[in-house]
Amino acid sequence: MTTLSTVTTTQELDTVLAAAVSARAALAESTEQTRADALRRIADAMDGAAGDLVPLAHAETNLPVRPRLFGELGRTTFQLRLLADAVLEGSHLEATLDSPDPDWPAGGRPDVRRMMRPVGPVVVFAASNFPFAFSVAGGDTAAALAVGCPVVLKSNPGHPEVSALTASLVTEALAAAGLPPGSFGMVSGEDAARAAVVDPRIRAGAFTGSAKGGRTLFDLASSRPDPIPFYAEMGSVNPAFVTESAARSRGAEIADGYLGSFTLGMGQFCTKPGLLFVPAAAAEPIEERLVAALAERPAARLLNERIAEGYARALSALTNHAAVRVLHAGADSAAGPAPTLLGTSAADLLAHHAELAVECFGPTSIVVRYSSDDELLACARSFTGELSATVQGEGDEELAGTLLAELSERAGRVLWNGWPTGIAVTYAMNHSGPYPATTAPAHTSVGAASLSRFLRPVAYQNMPQHLLPAALRDGNPLGIPRRLDGVLTLPS
Amino acid sequence: MTTLSTVTTTQELDTVLAAAVSARAALAESTEQTRADALRRIADAMDGAAGDLVPLAHAETNLPVRPRLFGELGRTTFQLRLLADAVLEGSHLEATLDSPDPDWPAGGRPDVRRMMRPVGPVVVFAASNFPFAFSVAGGDTAAALAVGCPVVLKSNPGHPEVSALTASLVTEALAAAGLPPGSFGMVSGEDAARAAVVDPRIRAGAFTGSAKGGRTLFDLASSRPDPIPFYAEMGSVNPAFVTESAARSRGAEIADGYLGSFTLGMGQFCTKPGLLFVPAAAAEPIEERLVAALAERPAARLLNERIAEGYARALSALTNHAAVRVLHAGADSAAGPAPTLLGTSAADLLAHHAELAVECFGPTSIVVRYSSDDELLACARSFTGELSATVQGEGDEELAGTLLAELSERAGRVLWNGWPTGIAVTYAMNHSGPYPATTAPAHTSVGAASLSRFLRPVAYQNMPQHLLPAALRDGNPLGIPRRLDGVLTLPS
Repeated sequence: MTTLSTVTTTQELDTVLAAAVSARAALAESTEQTRADALRRIADAMDGAAGDLVPLAHAETNLPVRPRLFGELGRTTFQLRLLADAVLEGSHLEATLDSPDPDWPAGGRPDVRRMMRPVGPVVVFAASNFPFAFSVAGGDTAAALAVGCPVVLKSNPGHPEVSALTASLVTEALAAAGLPPGSFGMVSGEDAARAAVVDPRIRAGAFTGSAKGGRTLFDLASSRPDPIPFYAEMGSVNPAFVTESAARSRGAEIADGYLGSFTLGMGQFCTKPGLLFVPAAAAEPIEERLVAALAERPAARLLNERIAEGYARALSALTNHAAVRVLHAGADSAAGPAPTLLGTSAADLLAHHAELAVECFGPTSIVVRYSSDDELLACARSFTGELSATVQGEGDEELAGTLLAELSERAGRVLWNGWPTGIAVTYAMNHSGPYPATTAPAHTSVGAASLSRFLRPVAYQNMPQHLLPAALRDGNPLGIPRRLDGVLTLPS
Repeated sequence: MTTLSTVTTTQELDTVLAAAVSARAALAESTEQTRADALRRIADAMDGAAGDLVPLAHAETNLPVRPRLFGELGRTTFQLRLLADAVLEGSHLEATLDSPDPDWPAGGRPDVRRMMRPVGPVVVFAASNFPFAFSVAGGDTAAALAVGCPVVLKSNPGHPEVSALTASLVTEALAAAGLPPGSFGMVSGEDAARAAVVDPRIRAGAFTGSAKGGRTLFDLASSRPDPIPFYAEMGSVNPAFVTESAARSRGAEIADGYLGSFTLGMGQFCTKPGLLFVPAAAAEPIEERLVAALAERPAARLLNERIAEGYARALSALTNHAAVRVLHAGADSAAGPAPTLLGTSAADLLAHHAELAVECFGPTSIVVRYSSDDELLACARSFTGELSATVQGEGDEELAGTLLAELSERAGRVLWNGWPTGIAVTYAMNHSGPYPATTAPAHTSVGAASLSRFLRPVAYQNMPQHLLPAALRDGNPLGIPRRLDGVLTLPS
């Protein structure tokens, strides 16, 4: 185990990678039961250590103990258990069996059986803003272990102690489940991170964090002699669009919901709504209500110094932009910043998209006044890749339908009369989006579908029963959904 | 329509791309029935035009009319119809519906519904060696259109006339099915190809061809300001491993099967077995039988001058390599080359892997003598990414099992007592593999699963029924498999 606040040396990284490779085959051949058991043991251990984990996380991230950190820990252990269930259900294996058929067009059909198999050792980059849910035992680690890939975890420097404790719980749980040492290893430091991404032993990468960091690592992964898939989730502006009738009929409710969403967790969420589009004709009461409410909002410490500095820089760039009005300037205090609200017009947003429609990681958002439905649609079309996009509508659903059609081309999740923060961990959840939201728009990093990132298909042709993986044997010994001669079939 | 043997200008490319963008929304919103009908119309039109298409293809590629070109055309139209069926079946949509649940862990579950949607305009690069199956109306085009993505087809310069005729059939069929103009466009020339890959209007790319071409285009796609998925299938060495007991008991049969496979289509297949590993103790009769049979093998013209020159260069590099013996030198004639057989040892292969384990596109293969099972396994482990790997075994299935476990980590398809050429178009087929076989090991370019390359997930949160896509509405109006609150459910 890497000791606290040290940086992994080249030699130590090599040891971790060698261990991952040596665990690869055993982990790939382990049963779904074994891996589900391992994930549940990790979850149990973390729940059991909540009294240690949460205070450590609080001390390292400034995030409130309740409801936030206990809630996030609960979400994290639930995610581990949900993925354990998903692995046992077995759809992720995409087991597909074609029986021999001499009359099959174009030359006959051999016995072909296809399934998804683990891609091999995965490097996972922990995020700063979720010390549990997107960190050492977060969704990426859970998904990779669930499908049988060793994990090399690059810890986030923002919470080294909670990372070390979580890593020791993971290591113990995997051993107790009978999985080989090397199934999980942790490294720290930028040099180790870069070296891991380009190491031939690593077969895929997953990242949650900044656009700059994600793109740098994606470029490294793509420029390898042997490129590997690199799943970077890099944040988003998450525009929210209020139709005129919604603004008129529910303006106060919308203002309150928006305020709650963009200030939640001091705005340190990749799903924070960074832009609220409101009709100019109904904007004033909404803005006034927001400004009044913001006067009461306390300052709070951000995650760490680096985040605080980045926020100050981004906020300063926005407030100094000629097209931006400051509706409410959050006062800085010793504790940290208070939330800030900015304003601009749709015409200015369209004219200065690259400067204004940018993620400002922290408690700031921009109200954008639009003057016509056409301008609203033009604004919707100005986005290229978002994790989420929200529509607040009310009885004007032809416009809403057009808006949603445009937004569903541009965002991984579209919301109706809701707010994007708070991503439920469910079967249907999608946390993805076209670039720049992610580098891999076909895959989600949250929810049961996140397993697919670490799998690759293999077809077995003309293989005797005893040489086939259990998932593909006659009689369906694993009891999983399978496609038989083209027909999706559920286990009896 | 681009006229024959011209190169697409910048202005013409812009017109094609603009048309693709203008077709995007209508194609994305078209029903599965409409798109299935369109694919079937393309298939019918191509079958109806076989009498024109096949002679054109023969004149342009030197491939024999029967059984090859008629067979390939049949395979191509079957592939269009299979993907039409797959689209109607609907599993590719991955429709997943979570109902609201206030008791769901970590804060309750909203109404979330997720499905796969078309990624947008796709650029498809046609291959030289399959003027139908991997060309204008081949698998990539069929898969992209099937899921609702406009296709910009970069034609292969090796068969311009058959490309033009196929393109006109595709265009007419799409129009007859009611799909918008711009759903399909064709361009030619290297400049247009590169410009298309980096154009922001293009959202994904697919390629079948050489390692050099595929990597160049992948690098362009990955280095865009907004990287896009690029699915390049770049060929393979397709090693075949003969265990000692198989060599002793079925040596003659194995020699005959191997010879047929590596000379099929004059070796111009990405699944040609380029290396045959045989036990040194049983190699002589196999090599002798191969050499005797090769004496009877006629010369034949390769696909085109560029391919012939590339083959001559690659063959010359192999025959001049100090570690290579020429077992049979195919005589060059005015018609073209006759098949050549080379030999080396496993020790030399391991020592000179980068020079000897390379794709030589044409009728040449190398017999590799190994001296022990350990050396055989070391050879299997020396590969990193193959489309296929084959084991010929016989009663020595512990060794075979170890070999297959290693090979399934390294190849997209593993075969037992068969040969890799001739990829059946089926539900379970996989035509993929780790780099350098492909740039996207998680996806296949052949078979029903090939649809996933051109899809991305979108989650709809809290959406009223009438604003949802039909695939996600209550009551399952499309009659497709769906996951309901985590449970995979078949249509009644």
